[in-house]
Amino acid sequence: MRQIAFLLAAIVLVIGIAFCAEPGTRLADENADPVFGIRIPDGYRNWKLISVAHEAGNLNDLRAVLGNDVAIKAYRNGKRPFPDGAIIARLAWTYTSSDENNKVFGRDQSFVAGVPTNVQFMVKDSKAYASTGGWGFAQFKDGQPADAATERTCYACHVPVENRDFVFTRYAP
Amino acid sequence: MRQIAFLLAAIVLVIGIAFCAEPGTRLADENADPVFGIRIPDGYRNWKLISVAHEAGNLNDLRAVLGNDVAIKAYRNGKRPFPDGAIIARLAWTYTSSDENNKVFGRDQSFVAGVPTNVQFMVKDSKAYASTGGWGFAQFKDGQPADAATERTCYACHVPVENRDFVFTRYAP
Repeated sequence: MRQIAFLLAAIVLVIGIAFCAEPGTRLADENADPVFGIRIPDGYRNWKLISVAHEAGNLNDLRAVLGNDVAIKAYRNGKRPFPDGAIIARLAWTYTSSDENNKVFGRDQSFVAGVPTNVQFMVKDSKAYASTGGWGFAQFKDGQPADAATERTCYACHVPVENRDFVFTRYAP
Repeated sequence: MRQIAFLLAAIVLVIGIAFCAEPGTRLADENADPVFGIRIPDGYRNWKLISVAHEAGNLNDLRAVLGNDVAIKAYRNGKRPFPDGAIIARLAWTYTSSDENNKVFGRDQSFVAGVPTNVQFMVKDSKAYASTGGWGFAQFKDGQPADAATERTCYACHVPVENRDFVFTRYAP
């Protein structure tokens, strides 16, 4: 009986640790990116616009880049490197020809945002992510984080713009 | 002497009326759209994102559509017609191939926002703009409103989407 009680207490303790863990610990958090421990930031869809783009090729998307207040302030003031706490969100949707718009224009010229493809975040924390330029990277599709192999490719792709603190997107006035 | 004083008083009165006029009166306000009396809304660059698009053809731009809080709430709740006070902003920039991005991708696939082309606004006021579907329309380039002939073309182009309260852009989730 005492052994069973001890076992139950141990189980409760382990479950408690798992559920109380901070996001950054990457412990048993299936909603967090598996490499950097990043979750989808609350309210990111309300953030201010940095710029827009179209990636052709295999991606073939339309994208918007948004920033939290720390990121927007740094963009507008030209502050580099970005301060800790800056988060940049890249939303993307399929690049979709709009029949209804084209009818009005009288020709095929209008491409609009279709269904969402995935969402990416860059989170600035110069200590936590010192080995990747001070940035953590995360990608989510339908709310689920990409696998570790995918996440590990992010940083290398951003190294060519190290002189702009690893950020591709420029602010669109 | 009394005549000069009267003349001066009259001049002061006329100037006073001109400067105190409400924006909607379209009186001597060179910053307002000449047809609908719309000025560039304060802080519109901070508004939330509705969607993004690419118009090819002669326009050849990348665009972002933003909304003030009234517009965003109506979009997210599916409320149509939009309530009075809703304002939708369409920002556009030249559709610009990005050499620096293409180098990283290893092929020509990246198109980004270049220089701003113009900004357009739709302002919902069902009484003031009753004859144009309840919407006022305005376009600005470098802070200056388009001429009256241009502004008068807006409404007719939006009539084909009257069943969506004259608004082309759908919300991008």
